[in-house]
Amino acid sequence: MLIVMGLDSPRSDIDKVIQKIVELNCTPHEIPGSSKLAIGITGQTHLLKEEDFQMMHSVQEVVRVTKKYKLVSRQMKSDDTIINIDGNSIGGKELCIIAGPCSVESRDQTFAIAEQLKKMGIKFFRAGAYKPRSSPYTFQGLKEKGLEILAEVKEQFDLKIVTEAMNSQSLNQVAEVADIIQLGARNMQNYSFLEEVGQLRKPVLLKRGMSATVEDLLLSAEYIAAQSSYNIILCERGIRTFETSTRNTLDLNAVPVIKQASHLPIIVDPSHGVGIWDKVPQMALASIAAGADGLMLEVHHDPENALSDGYQSLTPKRFKELLNKLSDLAPIVNKELKLYEYSNNPA
Amino acid sequence: MLIVMGLDSPRSDIDKVIQKIVELNCTPHEIPGSSKLAIGITGQTHLLKEEDFQMMHSVQEVVRVTKKYKLVSRQMKSDDTIINIDGNSIGGKELCIIAGPCSVESRDQTFAIAEQLKKMGIKFFRAGAYKPRSSPYTFQGLKEKGLEILAEVKEQFDLKIVTEAMNSQSLNQVAEVADIIQLGARNMQNYSFLEEVGQLRKPVLLKRGMSATVEDLLLSAEYIAAQSSYNIILCERGIRTFETSTRNTLDLNAVPVIKQASHLPIIVDPSHGVGIWDKVPQMALASIAAGADGLMLEVHHDPENALSDGYQSLTPKRFKELLNKLSDLAPIVNKELKLYEYSNNPA
Amino acid sequence: MLIVMGLDSPRSDIDKVIQKIVELNCTPHEIPGSSKLAIGITGQTHLLKEEDFQMMHSVQEVVRVTKKYKLVSRQMKSDDTIINIDGNSIGGKELCIIAGPCSVESRDQTFAIAEQLKKMGIKFFRAGAYKPRSSPYTFQGLKEKGLEILAEVKEQFDLKIVTEAMNSQSLNQVAEVADIIQLGARNMQNYSFLEEVGQLRKPVLLKRGMSATVEDLLLSAEYIAAQSSYNIILCERGIRTFETSTRNTLDLNAVPVIKQASHLPIIVDPSHGVGIWDKVPQMALASIAAGADGLMLEVHHDPENALSDGYQSLTPKRFKELLNKLSDLAPIVNKELKLYEYSNNPA
Amino acid sequence: MLIVMGLDSPRSDIDKVIQKIVELNCTPHEIPGSSKLAIGITGQTHLLKEEDFQMMHSVQEVVRVTKKYKLVSRQMKSDDTIINIDGNSIGGKELCIIAGPCSVESRDQTFAIAEQLKKMGIKFFRAGAYKPRSSPYTFQGLKEKGLEILAEVKEQFDLKIVTEAMNSQSLNQVAEVADIIQLGARNMQNYSFLEEVGQLRKPVLLKRGMSATVEDLLLSAEYIAAQSSYNIILCERGIRTFETSTRNTLDLNAVPVIKQASHLPIIVDPSHGVGIWDKVPQMALASIAAGADGLMLEVHHDPENALSDGYQSLTPKRFKELLNKLSDLAPIVNKELKLYEYSNNPA
Repeated sequence: MLIVMGLDSPRSDIDKVIQKIVELNCTPHEIPGSSKLAIGITGQTHLLKEEDFQMMHSVQEVVRVTKKYKLVSRQMKSDDTIINIDGNSIGGKELCIIAGPCSVESRDQTFAIAEQLKKMGIKFFRAGAYKPRSSPYTFQGLKEKGLEILAEVKEQFDLKIVTEAMNSQSLNQVAEVADIIQLGARNMQNYSFLEEVGQLRKPVLLKRGMSATVEDLLLSAEYIAAQSSYNIILCERGIRTFETSTRNTLDLNAVPVIKQASHLPIIVDPSHGVGIWDKVPQMALASIAAGADGLMLEVHHDPENALSDGYQSLTPKRFKELLNKLSDLAPIVNKELKLYEYSNNPA
Repeated sequence: MLIVMGLDSPRSDIDKVIQKIVELNCTPHEIPGSSKLAIGITGQTHLLKEEDFQMMHSVQEVVRVTKKYKLVSRQMKSDDTIINIDGNSIGGKELCIIAGPCSVESRDQTFAIAEQLKKMGIKFFRAGAYKPRSSPYTFQGLKEKGLEILAEVKEQFDLKIVTEAMNSQSLNQVAEVADIIQLGARNMQNYSFLEEVGQLRKPVLLKRGMSATVEDLLLSAEYIAAQSSYNIILCERGIRTFETSTRNTLDLNAVPVIKQASHLPIIVDPSHGVGIWDKVPQMALASIAAGADGLMLEVHHDPENALSDGYQSLTPKRFKELLNKLSDLAPIVNKELKLYEYSNNPA
Repeated sequence: MLIVMGLDSPRSDIDKVIQKIVELNCTPHEIPGSSKLAIGITGQTHLLKEEDFQMMHSVQEVVRVTKKYKLVSRQMKSDDTIINIDGNSIGGKELCIIAGPCSVESRDQTFAIAEQLKKMGIKFFRAGAYKPRSSPYTFQGLKEKGLEILAEVKEQFDLKIVTEAMNSQSLNQVAEVADIIQLGARNMQNYSFLEEVGQLRKPVLLKRGMSATVEDLLLSAEYIAAQSSYNIILCERGIRTFETSTRNTLDLNAVPVIKQASHLPIIVDPSHGVGIWDKVPQMALASIAAGADGLMLEVHHDPENALSDGYQSLTPKRFKELLNKLSDLAPIVNKELKLYEYSNNPA
Repeated sequence: MLIVMGLDSPRSDIDKVIQKIVELNCTPHEIPGSSKLAIGITGQTHLLKEEDFQMMHSVQEVVRVTKKYKLVSRQMKSDDTIINIDGNSIGGKELCIIAGPCSVESRDQTFAIAEQLKKMGIKFFRAGAYKPRSSPYTFQGLKEKGLEILAEVKEQFDLKIVTEAMNSQSLNQVAEVADIIQLGARNMQNYSFLEEVGQLRKPVLLKRGMSATVEDLLLSAEYIAAQSSYNIILCERGIRTFETSTRNTLDLNAVPVIKQASHLPIIVDPSHGVGIWDKVPQMALASIAAGADGLMLEVHHDPENALSDGYQSLTPKRFKELLNKLSDLAPIVNKELKLYEYSNNPA
């Protein structure tokens, strides 16, 4: 259920509504939009009555949310959610580009890539310290050591870190380094973990599971939001189908579907979505054309010797060519991508 | 097998190679490229020996094609195939836009839409006279009457007609009106019919089947090409997956995969691929960004009263807005879309 | 719409109902059950009124069929349809076993297999003369020559012939030899062809398409039934999924679903459904346990040298072992399988 | 890598091999079969040399395992793994039937069902205390309270308990009550959790993920086995496909595929696999006919009021009818199902 109030409602009126919700054993979620203030309610909302709220001061409307997901639905909030991370926004006009290697392999490798990306103006750096792999006998990431390297990268290059948390045991360590905690496709329906991550109230990047419907993805986001953690970035990364010529089938239909159903930002990971580097730039462009708020891309300075997913990684050179095209494309879909060439600014 | 010769080889040398192929009970396919002439060979090619051809005059190379599909493979011909239909090209720099209603419903409806599309500079008009429908109790198209209306549209508006042939019985009638014969997803593996259509040697638009892999699609194109009919346009229109929020899952990965594997043009049908009109423009832009050579789009002046697929049809107004965006997008992917506003030319 | 009458209704009352339906420009389908006579109506039934029929003599009930498929629905006829082919029934208590090689390869091969199957008491012989193959460059069947061999087999061994019709051109030739006309998975949605085959009013075996839902399959059967051709055997043969360890994913759930939704017999083709011979017997047993009315099985005396699908064919020895198990299993699901060992009857 | 030794090898010889493996920084896994003793090796086995072991006493053969999964592969151990839980075996001749409600809803409900199942001779009782649900707003299980009820059931009825562990936090509590720890489909690729569960070395029931291939499932089992936890029961429970007439598509092909690829027992959950109670018995019979070692079935005494999955639960009466049929079916596939009617033995 959703209580709609004016943005200029006196704080005392808002607090009374919140107090009433708590008294009725439900959880209030204050969600300000551009023209209205919404107070979402979760819990046993079927026990609530519209009349309980309709007559309260400053309440404009009481709405039953008809979708299974509530807090993340567009019905709850008609404005796009814009997530702000130290001045870098995700979900607004500026395209969000998250780039970096699949895994932290070594300090040298990570620094080499980070340096080049920084020079291109990239603000979000991705690299996995914990790697969920389908075989127990393949490279599983550098783990704590990897996190340390990421902490150094963060410090040295002033890059925002996006890295995956795989389990409860290492969650706090990951959360210390990560600016955005990534939740992988295989953990998308690990509901206890979603709740744990939600309790940290840090920005989360939630990847769609390989056989998750859009509704499943939004319900998983709802698990996080129900913990009063609203800074959630959704990520389409390809689904499993019968087609074998590509690693996954990138479901770009999901982009406009999600844009309509939810106020959360949605980005695309074409590296996993197509799985072959020479087709990644096309699918990156297609993702933005479809209306995505950004991209997550694997970039490696030496793809042939990468310890994981080298065949889907772009070289920095190709990545830069792609950025230029993205920059041209952005205005057509009411976005923008500002690129800085630090190498041109020798200061 | 493939015999590579110089483009400037004397005709007598070429003819000798062709004659030799015929003598060996195989079929020659003369496929000129921009720098080489390829003579593709189909039939019992495992019985041929490279040496039979290597020493012949003007022969530069003899190549075994390793893919299951031969004539349509990029290995056979490295240049893109550009299909020319009365001066309108498909597969070259100019984006090919095929637009019109799902079905011919009446003379008035068809003329109303055709007139508006013509004014926007559209050259290819689509509309089905024969409609394969999953239920025998739904509208099956106006059939012969529909073809007559299309013939009138062709005459009056000088539009190139793209319409589906459903069966042997009506193939010749369809071929008389159609500039491009459309083969539907459900007929993609109707091999006898592919051969029949191939024998007409008219341009063909071949839609991907709902559960066809990219390889299946190219093998179906090969059935047509093996009849010496090389003007084939491939069309991605969505595949069947577990996702239910959209009508189909548009597999845009297929676009760069096909571009690499084959020299044939590939277009996308986002109307069927997403199946909901308000998400069609986004997916149309994404298709072109992914590298498609064009689009097939359903446009209806009165979608709510359309006899089929109204919920996925754009109004002319929205279609025109999309064209403007496509026109801006095209140069980013080395394409162009020239639009004419006839209404601006009152003369 | 469906008019229910008593089985003992006077013929004149039945004829009046039929005449009324024709007068209203619809098509009547007389479908006798064990306790009631149903008259199905197809055509523009939304224009009919229940009252038009309710007051007629001997009419017990007028029912709107709520499914998209009508004539093939269980609502239309609560009894199972039992198809009788020269005294051999399909859909009744006796399991129907259709066996034989994938293709007619030669007179010797076909006779060798037919002879062994006949000795085991098999009544239905399958073998393709026309083979739809995904590549134009693989064996496409012996075509007319294959039909001639099948005609000989039919004559010499008194076996009922099940063979595929691929196109309009060869349909009549196939129909002359076939006791049951097989329609392949790739033609399941070739609606014009379904209608053509329906007009012959011969028994039809309709295979499920690779990405067809159960509803799609029943709607395709409806196309045939709408031509007043009611002897239709449905066949589950595996669908396309992401799983690659087997050729297809045999969807045995479809068996009880179809049994409930339709009165038509449903058999299973585990040879295509799993695609590896050493897993065919298990899936054959599973099919019957799930409630199927029979099986279609590939049997070849020399699988390693088969021209098509050898890897999924059983040898006669293994097939016989399977028959023995099926015979034991049948009573558990209220079926029976009577096997005759002609070799034990030297007279 | 795999060291094959005679079953009668002196302990000292075995210990020397094990010691050698440890010295080489790898992990030995002693896996006795009926005629041979296998010592599986995991870790950096690519660094090992066959010669290191070939000359050691009692070593008969050194084998490289070619599959990605090693310890769970049939190559590692040709005999079927039979898991013994207090005298009740899984994977041997006796069919393993695990039955009970989807969730523990209350003491009364759980006891009522347990009592009836016990009377039918059922040995394994299933019921979820922790329920992973796609929506955060649906019943999530009684959690600790549910475990307490299960502990009582275990005590009072001497039933072996099968219940799901959802997360690290509650794993130990679950493990105290559970005789078999169930890992759900959504956790199948939660690799850290697989390892944690493996470290307990308790019997595990591992359900196949909704979009997991058979290979993925076996690799997940390998994660557990690599922790020296070898008592793993695999469970097919349906995969996600385009078909919507059933909840999932039960992939019974997986049963013979897994039987060939692995020595582990495989059971089937037709309740989730088809998702509609009146089709569960057919699919249960089909599962056993396909070669499964047992079944997991939802039974509820009052399905209409069940808090979860009522529509797929059998009533005790229908469950008993199914058991009788299973008992008849078992010998056909070299299994047996012994049923006891305690109510007939009033002594």
